Amino acid sequence: MPQKRYLFTPGPTPVPPQVLAVMGEPVVHHRGPDFKLEYEQCLARLKEVCRTEHDVLLLTASGTGAFESAVANLTVPGEKALVVSSGNFGERWAALVAAYGADLVHVRLPWGDAPEPDDLRPHLDGAKVVYLVHSETSTGVVADLEPLAAAAKEAGAIVVVDAVSSLGAVQLETDAWGIDVVVSGSQKALMAPPGLGIVTVSPAALAATGSSPRFYFDWRRTLEGQAKLDAPFTPAVSIVRALNVALGMILDEGLEAAFARHVRLGRACRQGIKAMGLELASPDDDRAAVVTTVRAPEGLDVKAFLLDLRDRLGVQLIGGQGEWSGAVFRIGHIGYFDLFDITTALAAVEDGLVAAGVEIERGAAVTAALRAFELPTPA
Amino acid sequence: MPQKRYLFTPGPTPVPPQVLAVMGEPVVHHRGPDFKLEYEQCLARLKEVCRTEHDVLLLTASGTGAFESAVANLTVPGEKALVVSSGNFGERWAALVAAYGADLVHVRLPWGDAPEPDDLRPHLDGAKVVYLVHSETSTGVVADLEPLAAAAKEAGAIVVVDAVSSLGAVQLETDAWGIDVVVSGSQKALMAPPGLGIVTVSPAALAATGSSPRFYFDWRRTLEGQAKLDAPFTPAVSIVRALNVALGMILDEGLEAAFARHVRLGRACRQGIKAMGLELASPDDDRAAVVTTVRAPEGLDVKAFLLDLRDRLGVQLIGGQGEWSGAVFRIGHIGYFDLFDITTALAAVEDGLVAAGVEIERGAAVTAALRAFELPTPA
Repeated sequence: MPQKRYLFTPGPTPVPPQVLAVMGEPVVHHRGPDFKLEYEQCLARLKEVCRTEHDVLLLTASGTGAFESAVANLTVPGEKALVVSSGNFGERWAALVAAYGADLVHVRLPWGDAPEPDDLRPHLDGAKVVYLVHSETSTGVVADLEPLAAAAKEAGAIVVVDAVSSLGAVQLETDAWGIDVVVSGSQKALMAPPGLGIVTVSPAALAATGSSPRFYFDWRRTLEGQAKLDAPFTPAVSIVRALNVALGMILDEGLEAAFARHVRLGRACRQGIKAMGLELASPDDDRAAVVTTVRAPEGLDVKAFLLDLRDRLGVQLIGGQGEWSGAVFRIGHIGYFDLFDITTALAAVEDGLVAAGVEIERGAAVTAALRAFELPTPA
Repeated sequence: MPQKRYLFTPGPTPVPPQVLAVMGEPVVHHRGPDFKLEYEQCLARLKEVCRTEHDVLLLTASGTGAFESAVANLTVPGEKALVVSSGNFGERWAALVAAYGADLVHVRLPWGDAPEPDDLRPHLDGAKVVYLVHSETSTGVVADLEPLAAAAKEAGAIVVVDAVSSLGAVQLETDAWGIDVVVSGSQKALMAPPGLGIVTVSPAALAATGSSPRFYFDWRRTLEGQAKLDAPFTPAVSIVRALNVALGMILDEGLEAAFARHVRLGRACRQGIKAMGLELASPDDDRAAVVTTVRAPEGLDVKAFLLDLRDRLGVQLIGGQGEWSGAVFRIGHIGYFDLFDITTALAAVEDGLVAAGVEIERGAAVTAALRAFELPTPA
C-alpha cells in the first residue's frame, strides 16, 4: 500500500475532501455570474467568521502579503508604529513596518511570553498603529487579545492583529473588541489550500490610510472591486471557491463549537505530551489551542527525528523557527482535526523518540489524550 | 444533461484535466522534501519556458502583483521611467509606476497600435527603466518585441516586459533579446489556474534595485528562499504543483511547436471571423496569436450578446476593457486550445449574432477556420 500521509503542521493544514474536490473542478472566469455568486457568499461568510460588520478583503497572496497590505496602507514614513513581538512572526512584522519607514517602536518580549497590556502601555503615546499577534505560531502562545486591543484603542491607535493561525480556531471578536484590522490566511484553521490572504478593514483604518506606495495591496482598489464583485486583479478562483466551501463547513459546525473543539484538541495534545514525560514550550492552558510546542529532549536531533517520522511513518510535524530552531518541535491542530489526528501524532512522536533512543514514558500518551479530549459517551 | 462549459477567454484559460487532478490532491507542506522536488522542477521548467539562464521568481500573486514587484524593486522616486502603452494593461503599468513616485514618461499610443522603436527613441535619454507590453490582452496586439527591447537596451535602460498573456504562446527570447525582467502569470498560456506570478530577473536588474519600500515582493528575499528551495512565504502549493505539470506538458509539446500551434489557432480564428463578414480590431497577422478582438457590429449590445452565449450555449467569451468596453468582444486562444475550440467559439458567435438579429454571412466561419488551420492529412 502506498504510505498514508498525515499533515499535522500549523499551516498548511489538512484540507477536507469536499474542499479538495472543488480545487479539481474546471477553472471558471472571475467575471462570470457563477463565480460572482460564490465570491459574494465567500465574502459574506468571511464577515461571519471574522465577526465584523465591516469589509473583509480577499487578496491573492500569503498571510504575509495580507499583513503587508496593512503596513503599506497605514504607514506614513516617520509616524510612530508599535510592534509587540515574542516570536518569529512578531519579529517579521517589525521588519516589515521598518521596511516602510515608520518610526518603529519594537517591544521585543522573550520568545514564548504572552504579551500583557502593561507591556504596551509605556510605549503607546503617539503611536498611530499598534501591531499585535493573536496566535504566535512559532511558539504556540495565543495572546489574551481583548485587553491588549483595548489598551491600544484607549490610546487612540489603529489596532492591527495577526490572526493568521487563530481565525476560526480561537475566539476573535473583531468589532466587539475594537480591532481595526484582522489579517489571516486561507491555509490554517480555515481548512483551505494556501494562496489567499484575508484582511478586515474598519472605517477608522480606512480613514487612516497613508501615502506609502502600493497598488496590488491597496485597500481601496480591492474594496471598490469587491463592491461590484469584480476583483481588480485575477484572483486565485479555485482557492476562492474552495475557501467558500470550507467556510460553509465551519459555519455549519458553528464557530463556538469549533472554538470548543480546538480547546479540547489542545488539551488532548498537551496531556499526551506530558504523559510521555516531555516538556511543553507552549503554555499549558486552554488558550493554547493552535499548536503544541514541545521542548526537544536533550540530545535529540530534531531535524533527523522529524524526517524519520515523515519518511517512516508518513507523519509531517514541524521544527522550531528562528531562535527556537533545533530546540523544539511543533504539532499543529487547527482546522480539519479531530481527536484521532492527535492520537496519531502522539503515537508517531512516541515511536520516533524511542527510535531515536530517547527515554520516555511509553504507552501512556494516547490514553492520556483520549481521556483529556472526552469523546461523547454512547447513547 | 448539465450544460458543458467552454472557457474561451484570454485568462483564466482552460486547464487540462491532468493539471486539475493535481489541484485536487491533498495539500503538502511547502518545506517537505516532496514539495521541494516539484518546486525545483517547476523553477527549472520556468527557466526553459522563459528562455533564460537567470533566476525566475515564483510569487503567490496575480500577474499585476508580479509586475508590481518589478516596479517596487526597480523604482527610485524621481528617477525617470518610461512606459509605452497602447491599451488597458500598458495604462495600468503607467499608473503603477506613478504610484511608486518615478518620474514617469508615459508614451501613450492609440489603443490597438503596435509600438515601434521610433515611438520610444525620443524618450529614452536618462530613463532608468523601460516598461514594455509584449501582448496587450485588451486589444490583441502582440508587439514586435525584439527591436523594442534592443532600442531600450542600447540607451542603457533596464527592460521590463509584460508577457502575462504571451509567455508560452508567442516567441519570447528573454536572454537573447536582452530583456532584464519578464513578468507573467500561471493562468494564461501556461495552462494552470490563476494565483501565481512569474518574474525573470537578470543580474543587471538585480544590481539596479532601488529604495522603494517592499517586503513580500522583494526580489532578494524570494531569491534567497528559492536558492534553498525554501520559499520565504507559504506559496500556493497546489498551484505550484499544478503549474509544474502544465509546464511539463508544454515542454513535451516543445516550445516551437506550441508557438506554431498558436499561430495557426490565431489564423483559424481570424479567417472564421472575417468569413462571417465581421471586422477585426486586433491585427490580421500571424503575430496576433493570443486573442482575436472583434469589432461589435453596429447596434449589438455586447454585454447581452456575451451573456446569451454563456447562458444559452455555455460559451464564455469576454468583452472589451477600458475605452474599448462595449465596442469589441474577444476570443482568447492561448494555452490548452486546439482547432475544435476555435470552431466551437466561432459557431457560438455565429449563433449568438443571428439570435441578436445581426445580419452576417452564415455557415462560412467554421469551414474557413478548418481550412486556415490545416489539420494534418491522413497517412
